[in-house]
Amino acid sequence: MGILTKPAIVRPQYRITQDEMVDVLQRLHPNHPDWSKINRMIRNTQVNERYIVRPIEEIIAHSRFEERSLIYKEEMRRLSVQAVEQALENAELEAFQIDLIIVTSCTGFMMPSLTAYLISDLPFREQTKQLPIAQLGCAAGASAINRAAEYCEAFPGANVLIVSAELCSLCFQPAESAISDFVSAALFGDSVSACVMKSTSGTGFQVESNASYLIKHTENYIAYDVKDTGFHFVLDKQVMYTIETVAPVMREFVEETVQRAPSDLDFFVFHTGGRRILDELVKHLGIAEQRVALSRESLAECGNLSSVVVFDVLARLFEAGTRSPGDKGLLAAFGPGFTAEMCAGTWVE
Amino acid sequence: MGILTKPAIVRPQYRITQDEMVDVLQRLHPNHPDWSKINRMIRNTQVNERYIVRPIEEIIAHSRFEERSLIYKEEMRRLSVQAVEQALENAELEAFQIDLIIVTSCTGFMMPSLTAYLISDLPFREQTKQLPIAQLGCAAGASAINRAAEYCEAFPGANVLIVSAELCSLCFQPAESAISDFVSAALFGDSVSACVMKSTSGTGFQVESNASYLIKHTENYIAYDVKDTGFHFVLDKQVMYTIETVAPVMREFVEETVQRAPSDLDFFVFHTGGRRILDELVKHLGIAEQRVALSRESLAECGNLSSVVVFDVLARLFEAGTRSPGDKGLLAAFGPGFTAEMCAGTWVE
Repeated sequence: MGILTKPAIVRPQYRITQDEMVDVLQRLHPNHPDWSKINRMIRNTQVNERYIVRPIEEIIAHSRFEERSLIYKEEMRRLSVQAVEQALENAELEAFQIDLIIVTSCTGFMMPSLTAYLISDLPFREQTKQLPIAQLGCAAGASAINRAAEYCEAFPGANVLIVSAELCSLCFQPAESAISDFVSAALFGDSVSACVMKSTSGTGFQVESNASYLIKHTENYIAYDVKDTGFHFVLDKQVMYTIETVAPVMREFVEETVQRAPSDLDFFVFHTGGRRILDELVKHLGIAEQRVALSRESLAECGNLSSVVVFDVLARLFEAGTRSPGDKGLLAAFGPGFTAEMCAGTWVE
Repeated sequence: MGILTKPAIVRPQYRITQDEMVDVLQRLHPNHPDWSKINRMIRNTQVNERYIVRPIEEIIAHSRFEERSLIYKEEMRRLSVQAVEQALENAELEAFQIDLIIVTSCTGFMMPSLTAYLISDLPFREQTKQLPIAQLGCAAGASAINRAAEYCEAFPGANVLIVSAELCSLCFQPAESAISDFVSAALFGDSVSACVMKSTSGTGFQVESNASYLIKHTENYIAYDVKDTGFHFVLDKQVMYTIETVAPVMREFVEETVQRAPSDLDFFVFHTGGRRILDELVKHLGIAEQRVALSRESLAECGNLSSVVVFDVLARLFEAGTRSPGDKGLLAAFGPGFTAEMCAGTWVE
């Protein structure tokens, strides 16, 4: 049973407010017939600002997939090294004490994976195992946590480092003009997180059970079209109705593994797929609005950080300092498939 | 401790001999100054023929990354469903008895991952866990086996399905003309495998220990350049000297976990990176040439199948019918990083 220690979050250096983004999008598509609807939908995201890895003018110029892939690789290495050093410090561990490195990132592609670069760039042992996960999108952070917990179960005493790194702005496609493209352009942000799961002792979220659920035949709800210009994000509005389907699964999971109703849990770490996803979770799990405040805060301040979100929200939970040993919580993320990935556990100190 | 049951291998319908491939390459680059050297190196691969997913004329025309990505997705689904049905039959299991699906593939990109499509396309449970691995290249098959074995350790009684699917021909870049590009064009083949790891009973290779080793600062030995035209495979000839470095690690791993010298093991399942890699393994591990006969046979008949190789060789081991319960063996694969991924265990019936 692994314990997630305090995640380290690294923000890229550039910042864009939602007002600035609306200006940029209007400049790119001045004659779009649906601007009033788009404007309303962008305001509805409840995203105030985001961090991006390159100046917005460079992002919208789209320097071709080849150059973006080089920027992706360079920034992935640079930002993740900073996050990893801080995460190791948070966990009071040295690099050589890490047994497995899991990396999640779906916003670019590199081979070798970042796992190999990290082992070379920092004093990790050559024997450190590598698990890069590129294709689980926004569910990947939760999935990495679940695989890490299973690794700690298989090897008691093991320590797992999870690095989630998403540079969503490098997937911005300036020529796309469906309404859902504008919403995506106003929703996703860039950040990198690193988080150590320890299996012996530590302060944090002890993961005790996990589950995954795929709604069959919903592959088109969240997907990439892979083109010469890179990954094009495709979002079907049907995704808004998925939580209604997975909430009973989440409820059953909590009741079976924590022996409580979701409404009686002490904390939640939810992926911020968007405002509507959080609204639906509150409604269908019957939980108090205040319980998702940190997820809403993360969404407003950084946008949807894809696989990084669960770590961003978990970091805010640590910062808030409101948890007590024995508190029970649920962590969940949602991504392509459509897949819900979840785990439950206890706050330990 | 999971048991790898008999893998199912599915070959795409098109076939090309090495003579035909040399003709194609000469037609593409008639004035290349190094043809005599290239010709000699291609003969040295000891690949006789390969299976490819599309007719060679279509492959060399390179229909753009976008169209190749659509072919990749379509063929991945079509071929893997066939492989999975056969693998389940080999393992005497039904789809609903599978707890985790691991997919390895580095020769295209799709999101949702093939794991999601498989769960939708076949009668898997919605709760089946998904682990797609895209960035470990030729080492991914062995890596999947190791992660599957750890999963069986964490959840005794679990069954894991591993699907490895590589359509290397969809990464063929007709404009590339470095000598290493010609060697790659003559080396890699297409195939799909599916293999069930059972943790309770079964006939096959019981995985009892595993290890991974990365040679630091060798990221450039095996890599992709990600361009508008897709993934461009880059191979540094330094890779030929890596086995000399990792063989002592493999030796120590075998001695510690099996309490035998590598030369005293009963069987080997080696990745067929190329003729030279197999020569080096024989030399530096001090094993009998005959022990790698199945890897050489796989290389000659299908080329290097990337992450599929270890399953192709394992399937040949089952077909050969020469194993007895209690036999000890080593499985190893090598990929970008430079990473060696290995496991050791016992043949059980």
